[in-house]
Amino acid sequence: MATGEFELIRHYFCRGPGAFGAPLGIGDDCALVAPPTSKHLAMSMDTLVADVHFPQHADPELIGERALRVNLSDLAAMGASPLWFTLGLTIPKAESRWLEGFSKGLFNVAHEYDCALIGGDTTRGPLNICIQVHGVVSGSNALLRGNAAVGDIVFVTGTLGDGAAAVAIIKQEFEVGKSAFDYFMSRFYRPEPKVREGKLLCGIARAAIDVSDGLLADLGHICEVSGVGAVVNVEQLPISEPLQKLAEPAQSRNWALSGGDDYQLCFTVPRAKLDRLELLLHQGKLQATAIGEIVRGKGVTCLRDGEAFPVVRPGYQHFGNDRA
Amino acid sequence: MATGEFELIRHYFCRGPGAFGAPLGIGDDCALVAPPTSKHLAMSMDTLVADVHFPQHADPELIGERALRVNLSDLAAMGASPLWFTLGLTIPKAESRWLEGFSKGLFNVAHEYDCALIGGDTTRGPLNICIQVHGVVSGSNALLRGNAAVGDIVFVTGTLGDGAAAVAIIKQEFEVGKSAFDYFMSRFYRPEPKVREGKLLCGIARAAIDVSDGLLADLGHICEVSGVGAVVNVEQLPISEPLQKLAEPAQSRNWALSGGDDYQLCFTVPRAKLDRLELLLHQGKLQATAIGEIVRGKGVTCLRDGEAFPVVRPGYQHFGNDRA
Repeated sequence: MATGEFELIRHYFCRGPGAFGAPLGIGDDCALVAPPTSKHLAMSMDTLVADVHFPQHADPELIGERALRVNLSDLAAMGASPLWFTLGLTIPKAESRWLEGFSKGLFNVAHEYDCALIGGDTTRGPLNICIQVHGVVSGSNALLRGNAAVGDIVFVTGTLGDGAAAVAIIKQEFEVGKSAFDYFMSRFYRPEPKVREGKLLCGIARAAIDVSDGLLADLGHICEVSGVGAVVNVEQLPISEPLQKLAEPAQSRNWALSGGDDYQLCFTVPRAKLDRLELLLHQGKLQATAIGEIVRGKGVTCLRDGEAFPVVRPGYQHFGNDRA
Repeated sequence: MATGEFELIRHYFCRGPGAFGAPLGIGDDCALVAPPTSKHLAMSMDTLVADVHFPQHADPELIGERALRVNLSDLAAMGASPLWFTLGLTIPKAESRWLEGFSKGLFNVAHEYDCALIGGDTTRGPLNICIQVHGVVSGSNALLRGNAAVGDIVFVTGTLGDGAAAVAIIKQEFEVGKSAFDYFMSRFYRPEPKVREGKLLCGIARAAIDVSDGLLADLGHICEVSGVGAVVNVEQLPISEPLQKLAEPAQSRNWALSGGDDYQLCFTVPRAKLDRLELLLHQGKLQATAIGEIVRGKGVTCLRDGEAFPVVRPGYQHFGNDRA
């Protein structure tokens, strides 16, 4: 087994898809890249900590999958196309079984999204995975948080709440059968970064964010930065069939509103562009549901049949509460 | 005190030097940057783990200084000019005193090297600081590890061994007076990334690396990637006066050869360009010492008065041995 840092890097991490515009392989002081001209480079860094963002003893292949997927989700939320990523990996010891699984999961996702590992650092310490993803987007098309305007319709891709349900299952707060277990574990460890959707929404959506901290928290960020408010009609929240089977409607709605880890896109569309969005929905190129509207004011208000809907807890903040 | 992640980011990290070519402030899903055209972007990520790379209870301002300085050293080793950095900060809890000190140290260095914080992530967990620095370099000028050629003279900037001596002092293996203590702590926590020197060496040096893991290990990387060997004359190793006072010559030399944490540049210069280097040395624009030569073969050989010089231990590898 490779015990030195350099053998370890070579053995487990010098592979994966070829890097576009990166003339230098892994292993020099820096990675060198030639970003496409006349475009902007979008960069996002996300850290995953053992027993905060995933259970320490989870299958390392799933940890690798999740680590890159949640990072790519931030590129998706800007409408950017992935190009490269870097990996800052801190591990308690260099165990070949763990590294093999982790790198397998990581490169599965790297291949799927054509995103090449171009550099990073490995160190010894409590398990911590810091990834930075880099993508390209035409500057004027980038989906920003701060562009929402009064009258925009608020949409969300896919369904919400599965991520929070998965966390409850991991914490053994719910007992489920094997097929439901597999479904929710896949939703937690293998969320689908909406890269294709983000690119389609460039030029249509005005503001966008990925739902990582919970819909209310994330839509709240759009509202705060855009200087607007939002109304969400809870009966319109898209809930998956497995989640409808797992939990009472009140619980599902609360998870959909406040649970994190869904990695769907929440975006706002001006009314003048609704026909372009509807064409994409009709063509099956995008799956999204209208859930509310941008309004004057501040913060996110939830309505159910036109009445105020009380929400059980605010969105996930790393230092605000404990999570699996 | 700000307890939520977002208030924390705003309070402690939304400041520092203005970002060149970064149209979007901190706080969106991604940072957006417009890299200078016709140049390459150099990117490097380094992770610092508490009690591996610095003592957990060290002064947070010094931790912040060191974290950014050691990262900038990788840009220096490519001859790149710093532009932006991102910060993945994992902390056990959001303590305002710690964050205030840490961010103060970080921004001191950011201002000194005109490198703007453009994004990142804060999470809860065992203290871990992952920084990615981004700089710009003309692709054909970048100082790579793999370009050394037989006959090149090997140089090193500044002096070597102070970093390892500082670690020994932190580990209380040496007792020193206050002025020596202050000197070595400054060398450990406030190493000077050789950014100016790296830029001057573009077009003169053939290969370069920063001495973070120890001269023998780092020059060994140059040799391995370049397919050459190197001879180092130990009597030519530049040792600082405080280190000469602190330790016996044999100890100082071993630290200079094998200790890490010096963050000097080790570089090789073809004989045809020695006059250009000597002009820089003569003008006082650069301080560097010739310590050996690139030769046919493999690995680094140490000589003292022409005889083989035995080295006590190999360079620092994260998983190979324990370090403060």
